[in-house]
Amino acid sequence: MKPEKLAQAAKKAAHIIAHTPTEQKDKALLALGQLIGEKKAYLLLENKKDIEAAQKAGLAGSLIDRLRIDEKVIHDMQASIRDVVNLADPVGEIVKVWRRPNGLQVGRMRIPIGVIFVIFESRPNVTIEAFSLCLKSGNCVILKGGSEAGNSNRALFTLITEALREVGISKEIAHLVDVKDRSYIYDLLKLEEYIDLVIPRGGEELLRSVVEHSRIPVLKHYKGVCHIFVDESADFPMAYEVCLNAKAQKPATCNAMETLLVHESIAQNFLPEMTKRLKKSGVRLKGCRKTVQIVKNIDLAQEEDWHEEYLDLVLSIRVVKDMDEAIAHIRTYGSNHTDAIVTGDYQRAWRFLREVNSSLVLVNASTRLNDGFQLGLGAEMGISTTKLHAFGPMGLEELTVTKFIAFGEGQLRA
Amino acid sequence: MKPEKLAQAAKKAAHIIAHTPTEQKDKALLALGQLIGEKKAYLLLENKKDIEAAQKAGLAGSLIDRLRIDEKVIHDMQASIRDVVNLADPVGEIVKVWRRPNGLQVGRMRIPIGVIFVIFESRPNVTIEAFSLCLKSGNCVILKGGSEAGNSNRALFTLITEALREVGISKEIAHLVDVKDRSYIYDLLKLEEYIDLVIPRGGEELLRSVVEHSRIPVLKHYKGVCHIFVDESADFPMAYEVCLNAKAQKPATCNAMETLLVHESIAQNFLPEMTKRLKKSGVRLKGCRKTVQIVKNIDLAQEEDWHEEYLDLVLSIRVVKDMDEAIAHIRTYGSNHTDAIVTGDYQRAWRFLREVNSSLVLVNASTRLNDGFQLGLGAEMGISTTKLHAFGPMGLEELTVTKFIAFGEGQLRA
Repeated sequence: MKPEKLAQAAKKAAHIIAHTPTEQKDKALLALGQLIGEKKAYLLLENKKDIEAAQKAGLAGSLIDRLRIDEKVIHDMQASIRDVVNLADPVGEIVKVWRRPNGLQVGRMRIPIGVIFVIFESRPNVTIEAFSLCLKSGNCVILKGGSEAGNSNRALFTLITEALREVGISKEIAHLVDVKDRSYIYDLLKLEEYIDLVIPRGGEELLRSVVEHSRIPVLKHYKGVCHIFVDESADFPMAYEVCLNAKAQKPATCNAMETLLVHESIAQNFLPEMTKRLKKSGVRLKGCRKTVQIVKNIDLAQEEDWHEEYLDLVLSIRVVKDMDEAIAHIRTYGSNHTDAIVTGDYQRAWRFLREVNSSLVLVNASTRLNDGFQLGLGAEMGISTTKLHAFGPMGLEELTVTKFIAFGEGQLRA
Repeated sequence: MKPEKLAQAAKKAAHIIAHTPTEQKDKALLALGQLIGEKKAYLLLENKKDIEAAQKAGLAGSLIDRLRIDEKVIHDMQASIRDVVNLADPVGEIVKVWRRPNGLQVGRMRIPIGVIFVIFESRPNVTIEAFSLCLKSGNCVILKGGSEAGNSNRALFTLITEALREVGISKEIAHLVDVKDRSYIYDLLKLEEYIDLVIPRGGEELLRSVVEHSRIPVLKHYKGVCHIFVDESADFPMAYEVCLNAKAQKPATCNAMETLLVHESIAQNFLPEMTKRLKKSGVRLKGCRKTVQIVKNIDLAQEEDWHEEYLDLVLSIRVVKDMDEAIAHIRTYGSNHTDAIVTGDYQRAWRFLREVNSSLVLVNASTRLNDGFQLGLGAEMGISTTKLHAFGPMGLEELTVTKFIAFGEGQLRA
């Protein structure tokens, strides 16, 4: 199908799914969950083709791991569908109503955005997650997965179509882009008349390329260079726990800490025990000049280290003179993703919350908590670092927009 | 200054204005209002240069009118500044706080978007309105007015710089693009690293060109093809008033009614008196086949009429079989701007509110009410028909975004 035809078909179907009752949407999701279980053998078989091709092509082991569908991934996909079923339908929710002096009752009502184009890499389960969230929020979805997962995505999409058919929802509300030609994607990204939003999920190269070619608004998440500032009034045992969790609990994630900032006045007392614990967890350390004077046998951090998203068991440490320097460091090297302060001081806690403009700013808690489930939004479509529409984890609400509604009794413009 | 330099300077200043106290921002606005009064002679003189150049170039009278700064425009600019001073500062507002099972208190706090690029045509007072709204909402602004208003915009911008200087806010928080070269604008539109949002205000050609060249998200308002559906249960006197107001109170505005839809079962009784009143107000009518049978001596509407934004005392009328046909018509020909129903029926009122996805949907009130002041948002930056971030009038809140904040006591990710 030509890009324009596909986008037109999606736009045309947008009002169908926008007004599909919650019950029917949930039934489609439950049917999909069941089909994933029933057709497990088929999914594993199709996935095997992708895995073998990837091995043949010599892809890195970590990439092949992300590609793999096994019992656990099957189970996780089913669980993520159930989670979405259990979330409240945001469509039609009236967010607020106020009364004007002329008696007009004005409010805001949530409606779907329309057609959402999700572009992602490797993990084929994103096919299921993105579809579930778009369906529940009343949006039409166009899915484009990585070509290395072509067989897996095609198989999963077959089940989506089957589930929609079972409950009588038009299959036009979900589309899979099954072409390898990049120019096809670039053509779709020009169709702002039909597509309302693009959400790319993947590496920086993918994101830059999407932004460069798109006429449609893009919600993106470039990288997570996350900081924790341990203030002089910090409770040390709490700081040890929070920093260790933020760095080592799952270092390959975007909300893991990459740089630790420590107030000068406590550095001498705090760093020896902190770094001992980090090392014990296998974290390789790099430090500023002051840090390497306190902690022996670690590398001196270079300028580029402060910009680095290691996504690994590596941490850079910097001793800062005061809070001003900590905030200035985050402003210079941060990525608006997730930053935290550990402090016992009321004023500093609030100043940090106000002045650091990251998608999540925490006091006395781990940066790893920046996640839709952890924050109570339920399933998410990724974490946006775009300061527009949705900043932070994108749950169901973030896939809607509000329109104004007004209840009148003949009100006119004077 | 090169485009990149200008955008970098703006980005650098963004955190200054993001954290400027409300009081200081209000002082700058009040100083600006006073300067506009004190330097009136200067403004009128500079404006006269633009008017004379426009007359010499043979610009249409209506365009020259929009260009003109007179006593009334001076007064309106001062009033609009006072309005913004009186609005609550949205920055730092905590919108919502909720508690997670682990005791973490999670909330959302409003922060400025960052750097906003406002591109507008003709009316030089937009310089003042756009600056005021961006300043109060803590955003850095880059202003680009129409070149036909070059002298006027430059003069107004001089006063902005002077007001900022008086209260000690860096002049880098506001920039005027004072070049005629279009490629300069296109270069700015590529700098998504430094500019967060583009708001074009003007004709369709300007908007399409901005969208085509921008890598930065654009909030746009294409056109307002607004409808009123008079249902069979409508109160006729109310419908007469609402329709007349929507069409004739100020026909050149985007929220004026362009097409009247009438339920078949009342067309015979409703249309004669309605059209008599419209004609009396100077409205030229065009009707569908059924309409021209009921109302004599009016033109038959052509297919293109249903797409038309007349912005004039012209109205197309269509008799529809039922509500389905009315909603289908709005879906086909509407522009997601403003649509209303006049009805006495509870179910139909709610169905219309739910199913018509325009930026404002009204029951028993005039489409002319789609305006920041009328809806209670205060001053506005225009009406967005983009279903993302801000849909409808863009007031101060719409120039902000929320970040997540979390108050913890050592919470970790399990």
